[in-house]
Amino acid sequence: MLIVMHHSATREQIRAVQEAVEAMGLRAEPIPGSERTAIGVLGNQGYVDDATIRELPGVREVIHVSKPYKLVSRDFHPAPTVVDAAGVQVGGGHVPVVIAGPCSIESEEQMLAAARQVKAAGARILRGGAFKPRTGPHSFQGLGIEGLKYLRAAGDAAELPVVTEVMRIEQLDAVCRYADILQIGARNMQNFDLLKEVGKLDHPVLLKRGMSATIEEFLAAAEYILAEGNGRVILCERGIRTFERATRNTLDLSVVPLIREMSHLPIIVDPSHATGKRALVPVMAKAALVAGAHGLMIEVHPEPEKALCDGAQSLNGEGFAVLMGEIRGLLKYLGY
Amino acid sequence: MLIVMHHSATREQIRAVQEAVEAMGLRAEPIPGSERTAIGVLGNQGYVDDATIRELPGVREVIHVSKPYKLVSRDFHPAPTVVDAAGVQVGGGHVPVVIAGPCSIESEEQMLAAARQVKAAGARILRGGAFKPRTGPHSFQGLGIEGLKYLRAAGDAAELPVVTEVMRIEQLDAVCRYADILQIGARNMQNFDLLKEVGKLDHPVLLKRGMSATIEEFLAAAEYILAEGNGRVILCERGIRTFERATRNTLDLSVVPLIREMSHLPIIVDPSHATGKRALVPVMAKAALVAGAHGLMIEVHPEPEKALCDGAQSLNGEGFAVLMGEIRGLLKYLGY
Amino acid sequence: MLIVMHHSATREQIRAVQEAVEAMGLRAEPIPGSERTAIGVLGNQGYVDDATIRELPGVREVIHVSKPYKLVSRDFHPAPTVVDAAGVQVGGGHVPVVIAGPCSIESEEQMLAAARQVKAAGARILRGGAFKPRTGPHSFQGLGIEGLKYLRAAGDAAELPVVTEVMRIEQLDAVCRYADILQIGARNMQNFDLLKEVGKLDHPVLLKRGMSATIEEFLAAAEYILAEGNGRVILCERGIRTFERATRNTLDLSVVPLIREMSHLPIIVDPSHATGKRALVPVMAKAALVAGAHGLMIEVHPEPEKALCDGAQSLNGEGFAVLMGEIRGLLKYLGY
Amino acid sequence: MLIVMHHSATREQIRAVQEAVEAMGLRAEPIPGSERTAIGVLGNQGYVDDATIRELPGVREVIHVSKPYKLVSRDFHPAPTVVDAAGVQVGGGHVPVVIAGPCSIESEEQMLAAARQVKAAGARILRGGAFKPRTGPHSFQGLGIEGLKYLRAAGDAAELPVVTEVMRIEQLDAVCRYADILQIGARNMQNFDLLKEVGKLDHPVLLKRGMSATIEEFLAAAEYILAEGNGRVILCERGIRTFERATRNTLDLSVVPLIREMSHLPIIVDPSHATGKRALVPVMAKAALVAGAHGLMIEVHPEPEKALCDGAQSLNGEGFAVLMGEIRGLLKYLGY
Repeated sequence: MLIVMHHSATREQIRAVQEAVEAMGLRAEPIPGSERTAIGVLGNQGYVDDATIRELPGVREVIHVSKPYKLVSRDFHPAPTVVDAAGVQVGGGHVPVVIAGPCSIESEEQMLAAARQVKAAGARILRGGAFKPRTGPHSFQGLGIEGLKYLRAAGDAAELPVVTEVMRIEQLDAVCRYADILQIGARNMQNFDLLKEVGKLDHPVLLKRGMSATIEEFLAAAEYILAEGNGRVILCERGIRTFERATRNTLDLSVVPLIREMSHLPIIVDPSHATGKRALVPVMAKAALVAGAHGLMIEVHPEPEKALCDGAQSLNGEGFAVLMGEIRGLLKYLGY
Repeated sequence: MLIVMHHSATREQIRAVQEAVEAMGLRAEPIPGSERTAIGVLGNQGYVDDATIRELPGVREVIHVSKPYKLVSRDFHPAPTVVDAAGVQVGGGHVPVVIAGPCSIESEEQMLAAARQVKAAGARILRGGAFKPRTGPHSFQGLGIEGLKYLRAAGDAAELPVVTEVMRIEQLDAVCRYADILQIGARNMQNFDLLKEVGKLDHPVLLKRGMSATIEEFLAAAEYILAEGNGRVILCERGIRTFERATRNTLDLSVVPLIREMSHLPIIVDPSHATGKRALVPVMAKAALVAGAHGLMIEVHPEPEKALCDGAQSLNGEGFAVLMGEIRGLLKYLGY
Repeated sequence: MLIVMHHSATREQIRAVQEAVEAMGLRAEPIPGSERTAIGVLGNQGYVDDATIRELPGVREVIHVSKPYKLVSRDFHPAPTVVDAAGVQVGGGHVPVVIAGPCSIESEEQMLAAARQVKAAGARILRGGAFKPRTGPHSFQGLGIEGLKYLRAAGDAAELPVVTEVMRIEQLDAVCRYADILQIGARNMQNFDLLKEVGKLDHPVLLKRGMSATIEEFLAAAEYILAEGNGRVILCERGIRTFERATRNTLDLSVVPLIREMSHLPIIVDPSHATGKRALVPVMAKAALVAGAHGLMIEVHPEPEKALCDGAQSLNGEGFAVLMGEIRGLLKYLGY
Repeated sequence: MLIVMHHSATREQIRAVQEAVEAMGLRAEPIPGSERTAIGVLGNQGYVDDATIRELPGVREVIHVSKPYKLVSRDFHPAPTVVDAAGVQVGGGHVPVVIAGPCSIESEEQMLAAARQVKAAGARILRGGAFKPRTGPHSFQGLGIEGLKYLRAAGDAAELPVVTEVMRIEQLDAVCRYADILQIGARNMQNFDLLKEVGKLDHPVLLKRGMSATIEEFLAAAEYILAEGNGRVILCERGIRTFERATRNTLDLSVVPLIREMSHLPIIVDPSHATGKRALVPVMAKAALVAGAHGLMIEVHPEPEKALCDGAQSLNGEGFAVLMGEIRGLLKYLGY
């Protein structure tokens, strides 16, 4: 941590800051400059809360050097993590994995049809939502436990592991019974209690980036899970909120090479939620793979025009099969 | 809902869209224009999910006229709601209320000292956090149930009702036992399960705006609570996330008159979290009252320089007393 | 400047960075920490361009302590600047000034009517746009030189100094002939050539914040003007671009106390452009004064419902007179 | 245009709005709904300014169907435009073009070296800045006319057409004398006078997206150029401003397929300015091509570690040659 003093800070103010730092059990090292003094803080083992120092008289700015995460950092864990997701390897040098299925589980038939379509086209994990977070209470909220059963049955029929979103701690038992991978949605990325609970489990976790989360916050959220002992975390970029409204969100693809550099965890991309437009999904899916994504999450619905949720961003079975053909070609070109 | 067709949309495409609308049980009314055709959708009782229509061939855009909320809207409920918060009236023409106390509960002594200070200065509700949402797992996470007891005791000693944040459904019983008002924090504004549960309770709810929530999403979140039967919701603006980093968040004060126009619910302002800087709190607190806020939420700590959380934005007892004196003068000027 | 090395940076990498710093004529001071090494850069007289260092091997981050401005900083010029705007004093302890008039000059009659209305109500500077920056080329672009004449005549008739926007260097001569104060609009805040040219003139300058400019960039833009010798700059907050669309922009009122702390230049607020909604203008104007603004800029049109530009955010003469009455009361309350 | 009335709007208010519309020479068509009335506006030939209507009593919202551009729209000009840039074809089905060179022209030798390196590696247009927009006035501002001569000489020596940024109208003559393509930088995207002037010239124009410009504003800026008669516009995405600070800007790659759908103009991508980090440039350059970019703009400097500007995002000659090898492979794979 570096504490930058005002140009006009007095010697007493500088000394008071030094004392405040030392009261925290740390070492304070003044660095006099031509225009102002800065104070280096040494001896901390990790992130230091600056709250008691930031507004002391004479302090202009407090600059953090340590980050609010460590376990997820490649700085301290150089080798890439490969997450075993019910037999599917995600991350490292493994061939990027495609997760596909409908936004929400609507019926047994719909899930079976979707599962067969995505399996036939080459997806390796099946997705489907039983608990749906919706902006307003008057929209379809998902089938709940009934939906989980359809998902499990469809996964078994198609021989695909399944992933589904968990929204609250009390659902964890049920979701763990039916699903292979737990998804934490964007709106819950900073639901820290939920993160801690999934951190105590054995299931792999797919953690989506919050819609206005910085990379630092995203990695700190993953740190919550790792800190409890569960190291099987897959990160997922799904678009961030910006002033642009022509797309549902702004897909931040440069986060992929950046997270590969900063963290050892695998990072996948969801172009369906990011763009909100079916026509953009295939092209952004392929761009994501070129950017280095360890996988993709794509919405596929047997009949998107009848979907109860997010039909506009869903591919149908045929569209998905075409895309998977293109992806196979691209992966080959990329050396997989 | 208005469906805008492409300039080049064919008659078949227009007819297909009409049919899709009618399949939803609604009426479709084409409005031919000089450059393109639009299709008005009539007969809906509320917000219509556009997902199945948005990407049909020939559709350029779908425009919503209905909103994802109704119960919170002033359009349908013109009279302002006054929330009785354990005897303190919030909203309508009542004198704006000041909620004050430390960010986090640290000890029995600290809470008692804070309660006495804020009571003496004129605050009417006591705040204090027992469960703290922190970006990283290595920061202080709050005292939990133990903290709730200190909060209750301090409130009782100072004769102030108390408000505290609840982060998960399982905490609701405990929190309801000790607190008079339940706070839903910004990170949980779209934790819809939690919203539904507090919607089933009798306790008044203080709902903070998510850090990147639009006003529409904010009101839709409140709608979740009202839809379950709990109409005692107080909205709270606490700053939104923008590109600006000189303040912790960007306090969006124009939301106050806007929400007063759009909704009947009371709206208060938290200048402490919004700015993150102690020096800005008093001036923005007063600006909020002039903007029409029904109340304020202000962080006060007996010794901010030793606070375990957010000390830099906390006033000490003396600073708060000075501010309250200024607020009394301002409220008098404003006619209260 | 502080250069933070990677945890795993080698001694050779650290030495190479030191050499690169010294090649810039500066001093490099390594600060070894428990987790990583940082390198303090000393001896610089101002902002240092980090471009050649930021991506050297082993460098994790470069942190700036100096800012890209100095002349505008209160750190180096503690006393507040009072700008004499054709006899009207703006800034310091002077009574806040109200600038008012139509968004665009439409006719001689309209300007005269507006000038008389705003003068009668108590405005002290008249505004009106002759050159209008419009998003698309098919909208009304302003009356040009003809408009400047109407503005001048209206100002003379009402005995008010006038301010108008200048959009290009070649207009400077003409605008200086007719106007007392030059306005640089938000879209031109980083039109650095224009800033330099107005920096060479004697006219006071009203500089609007760019719609996505940080405070640092805003102050650095003002620095361009001061660096050329013109110290008569009035800053103007007019809302920033965020994800929120319910208002035209998000009025960032906390910028007012913050800029008062960081800079000696006066800062005024334009609630009309910030909100884009007539109904919000009065309340936000008053909130701005409480936040410490040195003045206000308010759109007034004799017949807003017939305005060629931005009618929806303009007050009419009557509405403005009511607001000015309220402002007089508020200023009295504030001690002016 | 669709005017949505309040739930409680009276018949008089609805009639007043109809009259206001008709006073504009347009037709107003009421569309009664179950909850509220909307009024369709017909007969307009393009974008209608809503300013006089938006705040009439009883109006809740005004929704635009027409856009503030038409000439750039694919709706009205379905065939893709191929821009001939001094013999290099950009857009349509032509092989994507790579523009490369240093951020700023520093000396004759530097430009010659850069030109030879990028030519040898396969770039087809040379870039270099003579006039540099810098946040603060104390940074290097470019060599001006002298720099243009070096650029021209280097382009001639390497047989490459050259592109350079023009910042003000008075520079146009000089820049046109030395450069083949005129670049309008992000900060000038809404410098409408400059857009109009380049619209009157014969030179092709490279228009960069403003850092907080919506796609609609970006296309409307291009419309300014086309409206004056110059149809040779190449659009360039270079990252937008968001809350994320780990990259310099957030590269918005989904804009590429979206603009290809909305407009007939070619769209290229600048990964250097977007990311600000050399290590991310190659991977994002390739992702941009997969996303459908008609070209790339990449910063290359013979000695990035000594660059006067933006060295951290510049590739050196060797790095660029490696990237071009990869790009050739990728383009082949993509069918070029």
